Amino acid sequence: MAKIDLNCDLGESFGAYSMGMDDKVIPLISSCNIACGYHASDPLVMQKTVAMAAQAGIGIGAHPGFPDLMGFGRRNMTVSPAEAAAYITYQLGALYAFAKSAGVPLQHVKPHGALYNMAGKDYKLALAIAKAVQAFDPSLILMGLAGSESVKAAQDIGLPVAREVFADRAYMPDGSLVPRSREGAVIHDEEVAISRVVRMVKEHRVTAIDGTEIEIVPDSICVHGDNEKALTFVTQIRSALAAEGVEIAPLAEVVK
Amino acid sequence: MAKIDLNCDLGESFGAYSMGMDDKVIPLISSCNIACGYHASDPLVMQKTVAMAAQAGIGIGAHPGFPDLMGFGRRNMTVSPAEAAAYITYQLGALYAFAKSAGVPLQHVKPHGALYNMAGKDYKLALAIAKAVQAFDPSLILMGLAGSESVKAAQDIGLPVAREVFADRAYMPDGSLVPRSREGAVIHDEEVAISRVVRMVKEHRVTAIDGTEIEIVPDSICVHGDNEKALTFVTQIRSALAAEGVEIAPLAEVVK
Amino acid sequence: MAKIDLNCDLGESFGAYSMGMDDKVIPLISSCNIACGYHASDPLVMQKTVAMAAQAGIGIGAHPGFPDLMGFGRRNMTVSPAEAAAYITYQLGALYAFAKSAGVPLQHVKPHGALYNMAGKDYKLALAIAKAVQAFDPSLILMGLAGSESVKAAQDIGLPVAREVFADRAYMPDGSLVPRSREGAVIHDEEVAISRVVRMVKEHRVTAIDGTEIEIVPDSICVHGDNEKALTFVTQIRSALAAEGVEIAPLAEVVK
Amino acid sequence: MAKIDLNCDLGESFGAYSMGMDDKVIPLISSCNIACGYHASDPLVMQKTVAMAAQAGIGIGAHPGFPDLMGFGRRNMTVSPAEAAAYITYQLGALYAFAKSAGVPLQHVKPHGALYNMAGKDYKLALAIAKAVQAFDPSLILMGLAGSESVKAAQDIGLPVAREVFADRAYMPDGSLVPRSREGAVIHDEEVAISRVVRMVKEHRVTAIDGTEIEIVPDSICVHGDNEKALTFVTQIRSALAAEGVEIAPLAEVVK
Repeated sequence: MAKIDLNCDLGESFGAYSMGMDDKVIPLISSCNIACGYHASDPLVMQKTVAMAAQAGIGIGAHPGFPDLMGFGRRNMTVSPAEAAAYITYQLGALYAFAKSAGVPLQHVKPHGALYNMAGKDYKLALAIAKAVQAFDPSLILMGLAGSESVKAAQDIGLPVAREVFADRAYMPDGSLVPRSREGAVIHDEEVAISRVVRMVKEHRVTAIDGTEIEIVPDSICVHGDNEKALTFVTQIRSALAAEGVEIAPLAEVVK
Repeated sequence: MAKIDLNCDLGESFGAYSMGMDDKVIPLISSCNIACGYHASDPLVMQKTVAMAAQAGIGIGAHPGFPDLMGFGRRNMTVSPAEAAAYITYQLGALYAFAKSAGVPLQHVKPHGALYNMAGKDYKLALAIAKAVQAFDPSLILMGLAGSESVKAAQDIGLPVAREVFADRAYMPDGSLVPRSREGAVIHDEEVAISRVVRMVKEHRVTAIDGTEIEIVPDSICVHGDNEKALTFVTQIRSALAAEGVEIAPLAEVVK
Repeated sequence: MAKIDLNCDLGESFGAYSMGMDDKVIPLISSCNIACGYHASDPLVMQKTVAMAAQAGIGIGAHPGFPDLMGFGRRNMTVSPAEAAAYITYQLGALYAFAKSAGVPLQHVKPHGALYNMAGKDYKLALAIAKAVQAFDPSLILMGLAGSESVKAAQDIGLPVAREVFADRAYMPDGSLVPRSREGAVIHDEEVAISRVVRMVKEHRVTAIDGTEIEIVPDSICVHGDNEKALTFVTQIRSALAAEGVEIAPLAEVVK
Repeated sequence: MAKIDLNCDLGESFGAYSMGMDDKVIPLISSCNIACGYHASDPLVMQKTVAMAAQAGIGIGAHPGFPDLMGFGRRNMTVSPAEAAAYITYQLGALYAFAKSAGVPLQHVKPHGALYNMAGKDYKLALAIAKAVQAFDPSLILMGLAGSESVKAAQDIGLPVAREVFADRAYMPDGSLVPRSREGAVIHDEEVAISRVVRMVKEHRVTAIDGTEIEIVPDSICVHGDNEKALTFVTQIRSALAAEGVEIAPLAEVVK
């Protein structure tokens, strides 16, 4: 029976600032990526979010980003691989401490925003990140864009890796995401998006923006929980996958 | 044979800013407190400092502080016990990650600056901090001012605790430090300071500022490494202790 | 004809984080206090908020706070008067630059949160803040709690000052606010709150929590715009004041 | 008589961290660029540095950078032109407030580090920055790399502009700096560097790295004051310029 993980970014509130509908999306997902205080979140938010995820029994991942709270970690920063690796270790450890203190294991690491995107295209950066994760705990799963340098780097050093796909994004013939600046980058038709997801999960194929059929093997689908529309979309994806006999399970059960 | 630990704050550089003479003081001490990115330090500095301490074989401690880089963690902040506890967990985890990645254990936790001072006088705050450390790892040693609420809180919950004394500070009859604002708070005569240290270690006694003889049982002596004078002073303390047959050893060997 | 200013904190969003219903409350107030990037806000938010306030023609004030984004400037920090003064100058200048670039004048300065409260009770701190404002521009109005040390310090050096009152807070017999920790600190009955406001404005009197009648001369009433209930309350205050023949006008027209 | 400005970055200390030998370099320069709290400095440092510069009578400039204290503003960040412009306004205003409070005028604005370099090559970014400066005060001088997009953008909108040259850097045939990653980027022979400076100032010519003779018209020479060697080099430049009859004067007297 086919298995797939649904992951969502959680714990992005900060101090007096509230973000996301974490309590609403948690019942709909199998893994979460918890912000670690660099691009979002603070220690109290991390503690609370870990507790909520632990209570729900979903897989817990660290979601480290650039030290750019003002830009929410979405702006490229020309850090060295050594800097990126140290940022990963720092944030990973911080989240690990909340998980360990709550008596739950850490399942994976997914870099956030610009760091995720940059590592996906830069092998040296991706390798430094993968090595940082492995040095801390070689059983942790690194989540990266399916087909990206991040996945390649993790595989090269023998670190468990999860290939992530996006339901609402178009793909280039080489398997990379169509840049948001290009027309057609985002798939707005929800039925189309859902049928693409189902096909990726069951057939490992997706139609690229130029019509090419490409292979894609997903371990996890990225979903969002910041508004009602996003929540409805996740519910629809769940139903469609169930109807097709696909089991939704935490990453640790999907990645072997 | 009497044993005592010599501890020093390390890893206080930040980005382009350099602070301390870490390489010079490391050979003179048995334990270090490494800043964790809130009041000082950054991930690269933490990584490098852990590597230096591991190489030297000294005990490694986390040195968490207030989120006040501009004030170097020296300004009181009216955080709640829950906030303080979460700040401890966060920073402790971050440093732990660098230690684990380097293959060395974490020995202790010593709150920094204003957080150390506030916890020393506020049992609720001290208890929250001790519980945060214990929840992460009940074998970690919490370092606190000898005779303070921090020591009491740790003892109350069964967390290993290290009682710290200061060579160059005068004591009140109740065992607390004479506030820096008061005349006589700092002992400038190095010979006097050293003989006081030796007496604290060997006889567990010190003369308070009003002439009272008080009991004080030290596990660790706080020393500094920011300038040549401080380094000379540490060397003198080491010689005096050796001459008196006192062994200098990491906290983990002193605290049973 | 009696005149009073209605002021509200604005521009508290930060990066990807949204806060407040600024566009809804702006039509209801005569002056605003715009956060300056230390406890809340960022340069783009400041620019946008100044533009909105300028468009509406309300008085623009700087709302400087402690460098504590994580605590939203609500936690006391033991800064020196010199530090506080420099923080005021810095943030004041930053907001001034957006006002000047938009072609509108700066009307006043109101310290935020913990800094406001601490200065209200600490004359030395209040004096340092007042002098910092005066050194930058002696025609700026400093807003402080009616009857507080902030008002006294400004008056002592000849800086224009606005005495602020709170509609929903109870007063001590000495004119200070009943601490939030005490029962009865907040007045939940809106009719009572409104009739108290009207009486403060027209009769310069309010009943303290112990029943004493005390004198209070308000230049500005603090209102909030973070939720629908708060907006309704402001609307009710406006109506009540209008019915009583009180004119709502920017601080610069109230303070002579 | 030829005139040239010597400018140096000042006020880069932060909190407990000390950087630079500001008191030593001030007597050797005619203008300074004072950090504004984003990539370096804090309000107390800004206040003190402005006071020192005012006392010495040198031209005072704002030195705004990226919000990247950990990277000292030296790492590229993909900010939008609107973000960059708002960061300039914010920091410019903050420094202006210290200058105005000290009774001295602001002379110029020089973006720092990565922001300076990015703007030098990106006309849209440069234009947004120039417009932000002009909106605040159209008489301020924008300092940019001679021949760069920054200079072009300022000229295009009629903002006074200062063309900056580097004594110790090699030039490309198009007038841009040889990237630091390329061999020969830095000129280590001080005599060569000084004779190049003199020639740039007097003849408006310099030899590019490929031997081409290119035209370059300098208004200001960038010097450093972080160590003894740098201070000696500035002293030598001053002597060489004096010997050649070149007057060293603040930017405001050089740029017409």
